Amino acid sequence: MAKANKKFIIGLDIGGTKLMALAVSEKFKPLGRFRIKTRGKKGGGGSQFDRVVECIAGVMTENKLSPADLLGIGVGSPGPLNPETGVIIDTPNIGWKNFPLADKISAKFKGVPVAVDNDVNLGTYGEYHFGAARGGRHVFGMFPGTGIGGGILIDGRIYRGASGAAGEVGHVVLDPAGPLCGCGHRGCLEAYAGRLVIAGQLAALVLRDQAPELAEEVGSDIRDIRSGQIADSIDGGDRLVEQVVRREAARIGLVVANVVNILSPDTIVLGGGLVEAMTRLFMDEVARAVRRHALPFLAKFANLVPAKLGDDAVAMGAAKLIAERLDARKAGNADPKRARAKK
Amino acid sequence: MAKANKKFIIGLDIGGTKLMALAVSEKFKPLGRFRIKTRGKKGGGGSQFDRVVECIAGVMTENKLSPADLLGIGVGSPGPLNPETGVIIDTPNIGWKNFPLADKISAKFKGVPVAVDNDVNLGTYGEYHFGAARGGRHVFGMFPGTGIGGGILIDGRIYRGASGAAGEVGHVVLDPAGPLCGCGHRGCLEAYAGRLVIAGQLAALVLRDQAPELAEEVGSDIRDIRSGQIADSIDGGDRLVEQVVRREAARIGLVVANVVNILSPDTIVLGGGLVEAMTRLFMDEVARAVRRHALPFLAKFANLVPAKLGDDAVAMGAAKLIAERLDARKAGNADPKRARAKK
Repeated sequence: MAKANKKFIIGLDIGGTKLMALAVSEKFKPLGRFRIKTRGKKGGGGSQFDRVVECIAGVMTENKLSPADLLGIGVGSPGPLNPETGVIIDTPNIGWKNFPLADKISAKFKGVPVAVDNDVNLGTYGEYHFGAARGGRHVFGMFPGTGIGGGILIDGRIYRGASGAAGEVGHVVLDPAGPLCGCGHRGCLEAYAGRLVIAGQLAALVLRDQAPELAEEVGSDIRDIRSGQIADSIDGGDRLVEQVVRREAARIGLVVANVVNILSPDTIVLGGGLVEAMTRLFMDEVARAVRRHALPFLAKFANLVPAKLGDDAVAMGAAKLIAERLDARKAGNADPKRARAKK
Repeated sequence: MAKANKKFIIGLDIGGTKLMALAVSEKFKPLGRFRIKTRGKKGGGGSQFDRVVECIAGVMTENKLSPADLLGIGVGSPGPLNPETGVIIDTPNIGWKNFPLADKISAKFKGVPVAVDNDVNLGTYGEYHFGAARGGRHVFGMFPGTGIGGGILIDGRIYRGASGAAGEVGHVVLDPAGPLCGCGHRGCLEAYAGRLVIAGQLAALVLRDQAPELAEEVGSDIRDIRSGQIADSIDGGDRLVEQVVRREAARIGLVVANVVNILSPDTIVLGGGLVEAMTRLFMDEVARAVRRHALPFLAKFANLVPAKLGDDAVAMGAAKLIAERLDARKAGNADPKRARAKK
């Protein structure tokens, strides 16, 4: 088998801190990965875009894949964005505004087809096709991190709603008089259970000498507090660290329970760095919250599972997205021929 | 035109206090209505079912419609129920349990096709096809009453979720330590803003001489407090009555805002007796809550409208449902013929 000449697809995950390109075969077998750091917004749209091009080119060079065999590129990006046109409407963290990402990437790679969608949608889609949510039909994916994103699949298809940005579960308001959120509203889930807010509480514990295990690894700079370190400090016996994380995991669970009451999904997949590092804690708290707060008749149909694909989820979902677009194109090209044949 | 021999459809609304049958032409022109009171659960399934039959027969007799011209019957019932089989799983208020309602009705009316679905779904569906939600695509209908039901349409089709019972917005939990709800959980929306809970607060105002206008019409029996009387007392100057209702309308608005954050509908239709009696108050409070608590990028796509069809909504939605089943049947019957013709 002449592997070198096999056709392939690239899935790209544009994250807040890093870019990851994943090359897969037409059957979605991973062929290789390439990671680089995301540049901050200082560099502006152009410079950040250069990193995107570098990452896509990198996965081909590193894995000896020929650009001539590249069938298409799927891209998961923070939003809001327009999945029809591939235009990024506004991503403050990266600095893109009305940026035609799909067309720009396509122009750099010989006009190859490019599809863009929201990263959380594609993470959920990846888990649905290749990971923990396989066999589901109405799927809700939730990925707690700095932001808390939600992806919704209805009948196995990405549901985007009227705005294109459905699934903003991080901004479900729990208490109209609650703490201020980054979005300007009060009492959003993210204002309690977002990574930075949790890290802030943990940093305060460190300064108060109430988290000795965590204090060995980090100081009071919340940027330094990583999921793995939080997990280690809990394993090491930092009870108050555990209490803080459990309380926020339960709050995430309350929102999951309310999504069950509204959407009645058959599958709920939980992922992201915090959940990966403390899977059992998060799954326990969310399952408990669903038992307590979701109607039993709806909860009994909702299967709660931890994500399986880790860092690959978004890129795998992106690869699937572009593969489907390519298939639709083929079908679209076939139709006119059949129409002509009938004449 | 020989109107008497025109084919027709019946939509039946099985409410908590009354049954209403609506006969419509094949083009959904209303031909007549027939209403009777729902019997309590004492009578058991059989007796309640007799009222259903009486109501369907009544609308035909009263309007001189011949059973020979009856094409089908659509039924909106409280749930949970199975819309595929037409079996009512459990409706405590009526006393049906695993009751094959569709088959039973069909057997009483010469085997005519019968379709059954949840009343809130069909109310939303009615408003979508014939009322305030026309032109929408992703529609959320909410009908505050004794229970607070929600209906979801995705791409113009009723969305039922994995359980068949999606849209239980009355049991969205606002505060895990909140008041006890009829469902056994704490802090559900219904435990604050359900009609009986609001009536309880108003009855207390009456007893404390804090609602003089309302006191002229009702006493402290919460069964006697009707939506129209609440509206009259507010118009008459009962400030505390207005405060109570506004606070709960705002709480309903908070849940609507969270549905916008999750589902991003293009149309939100609000209906039911309370909203009909105090349309402006409810629309104002819900619109304000959506502005305050939903992300602007999603809120701007969400059109908030009051229901238009009033008591007809469920029956009209039910008529549309059975009409679609009849169309699908026709298409289904046509296919085998075409298949045979090809041989």
